[in-house]
Amino acid sequence: MPTVSIIFFSGAGHTTKLAEAINQGAASVAGITTNLISLSGDDIVKGRYDNEEVLAKLDASDAIIFGSPTYMGGPAAQFKAFADASGGRWFAGAWKDKIAGGFTVSMSPSGDKSNTLQYMFTLAMQHGMVWIGQPEKPLQPNGINRLGSNGGVMAQAGQESPEVAPSGGDKLTGELFGKRVAEFTVKIKR
Amino acid sequence: MPTVSIIFFSGAGHTTKLAEAINQGAASVAGITTNLISLSGDDIVKGRYDNEEVLAKLDASDAIIFGSPTYMGGPAAQFKAFADASGGRWFAGAWKDKIAGGFTVSMSPSGDKSNTLQYMFTLAMQHGMVWIGQPEKPLQPNGINRLGSNGGVMAQAGQESPEVAPSGGDKLTGELFGKRVAEFTVKIKR
Amino acid sequence: MPTVSIIFFSGAGHTTKLAEAINQGAASVAGITTNLISLSGDDIVKGRYDNEEVLAKLDASDAIIFGSPTYMGGPAAQFKAFADASGGRWFAGAWKDKIAGGFTVSMSPSGDKSNTLQYMFTLAMQHGMVWIGQPEKPLQPNGINRLGSNGGVMAQAGQESPEVAPSGGDKLTGELFGKRVAEFTVKIKR
Amino acid sequence: MPTVSIIFFSGAGHTTKLAEAINQGAASVAGITTNLISLSGDDIVKGRYDNEEVLAKLDASDAIIFGSPTYMGGPAAQFKAFADASGGRWFAGAWKDKIAGGFTVSMSPSGDKSNTLQYMFTLAMQHGMVWIGQPEKPLQPNGINRLGSNGGVMAQAGQESPEVAPSGGDKLTGELFGKRVAEFTVKIKR
Repeated sequence: MPTVSIIFFSGAGHTTKLAEAINQGAASVAGITTNLISLSGDDIVKGRYDNEEVLAKLDASDAIIFGSPTYMGGPAAQFKAFADASGGRWFAGAWKDKIAGGFTVSMSPSGDKSNTLQYMFTLAMQHGMVWIGQPEKPLQPNGINRLGSNGGVMAQAGQESPEVAPSGGDKLTGELFGKRVAEFTVKIKR
Repeated sequence: MPTVSIIFFSGAGHTTKLAEAINQGAASVAGITTNLISLSGDDIVKGRYDNEEVLAKLDASDAIIFGSPTYMGGPAAQFKAFADASGGRWFAGAWKDKIAGGFTVSMSPSGDKSNTLQYMFTLAMQHGMVWIGQPEKPLQPNGINRLGSNGGVMAQAGQESPEVAPSGGDKLTGELFGKRVAEFTVKIKR
Repeated sequence: MPTVSIIFFSGAGHTTKLAEAINQGAASVAGITTNLISLSGDDIVKGRYDNEEVLAKLDASDAIIFGSPTYMGGPAAQFKAFADASGGRWFAGAWKDKIAGGFTVSMSPSGDKSNTLQYMFTLAMQHGMVWIGQPEKPLQPNGINRLGSNGGVMAQAGQESPEVAPSGGDKLTGELFGKRVAEFTVKIKR
Repeated sequence: MPTVSIIFFSGAGHTTKLAEAINQGAASVAGITTNLISLSGDDIVKGRYDNEEVLAKLDASDAIIFGSPTYMGGPAAQFKAFADASGGRWFAGAWKDKIAGGFTVSMSPSGDKSNTLQYMFTLAMQHGMVWIGQPEKPLQPNGINRLGSNGGVMAQAGQESPEVAPSGGDKLTGELFGKRVAEFTVKIKR
């Protein structure tokens, strides 16, 4: 069955909320299996990520959606450690032609989040993956894609707790994106 | 029939050579029609591009590959004028779900070419397109993907004429990329 | 006298408003002369910008602040035509060691504006300039740097007229940035 | 005495060689003190960097030059862990107005190195630092700035050992860059 895996790191919990929304959207598509995989700091020793089981799950996926908070203008080090650990897969071409996408969360509306998404795009391109963005237009101040991002999904944490932020509009943006990736995956795999 | 259009600007002629190599690769795929479209400065008045016929050809394409030299660290103004003129298509969602890719040429091996490719990616994402990169590994100093680029195809002009540069390795990289885009287009359209 | 030039393109007028705020901040610094230079489409023929008088004014400046709306995910073609026309100055090293900064405006809060700022940074680096960003923290939802940008100044046009947008907070961000660039220019030139 | 600190991570040793060349250039400037600081994986626990002594050295510096290999299209996770750990300094504005620059090494001539340099620029901008690039022109195939990078210094590792790579041209590029940063630091501090 076509499988979409969402692999993400979350520090304070906001990115987990967005990941769950994306997972919900993907899982709503008939015939799709999803994996929601949270990266753990416990798997990082001296800055190097090591969890073969997680990487094997991604090997077996048709689409991989990357997620991380934006910390100091880029992906969290914990996410980057995972990306670095995918070097063996890069060399083997193991993720070539898989579908890819990305999402990120930071405090402010803009806040260098596009830098994180561009990094995820660069990572996916090194793997020879096919990138799908978030095509909804930013037409409503509090609605879908209110922040204005197409490379991937952006959400804002503000100074709120994960119970409150990301907002409903941001989570709906994530849900639609998850659905889009899953539908495209079904189309490619048919 | 599935159609791949290559739309590019070339100043000194090096980008034309790379465009032709990509077109050759795309056209080699059974069942593919290609359009090789060169942007003309004559269609730009006061910095604004206007050629409805060209835009209509892209509307009728399944894949669009963008090309431009890298001038002063980004796409040539002539290419950017075309991109700006695609705003009506953006608003209408006319290019949503089309396949996209990009290529660029500059004097030096690195030379901010990735900035131009990232711009083309950003443009494609605004249109809701699906991005395909160049997955070949940089394993040989003068061979395929010798410069090391995966977001799209890079070629080097050096201080040579278009009769000599881009090199055979760079053009072969372009040819393989054109083939890849065309094959993916056939797969999606089947 | 130390001179700060602000060179920008504006389509609908929002970028002009932000440019004026930056100019006001710069001009408030004792001992600073400013030039507020609007790029005109009339100087662009077939996609190439030509106005030697404008370039000579920049040659005579100690700091150059670049401004453009973000159109289709990057600087306006009119701004890019100016950037391409600076190639002669690049070759001569005419702007080496000058101070540089940038600003941009788009419809949505994030909206690929950072892509435009990164382009301006890349342009400045090719010229060997020294880049100064916007260091204010995004602490208030409607106040200084409310959008969260440090590479340069961002402002949002929304769907409002230039009489209303950018907001007071965005313009204040611009004013503080102009002051910062001017103060640094005085410091360097003393 | 004006102080330039070079803080970097190196995996295989190539980045150390480039860091040493930059340090040599900086130390050649009269009246400059330099610190050459190698980030250690031992200071990273569960993906988080912690070494207060290193951060205090940077607090006491006038210029900070960031260095990292480019791994999987971005800065090494070990460098990113250090960047994330600078969040406290960001909040306190402790590095505001310090001089900043960057360097990176990867296998191929282009190879997404500009992505790493742009990340370092973004990091520096969040801290309110002033960015100095590498202004030498790429005029000789094997000489200074042969790869063509102005945002910072690039060097190529190829598939050679650190005894052989980076090349003499790449190291000379680094040395000139170190000198430039140190001279600018002296100028600012006078």
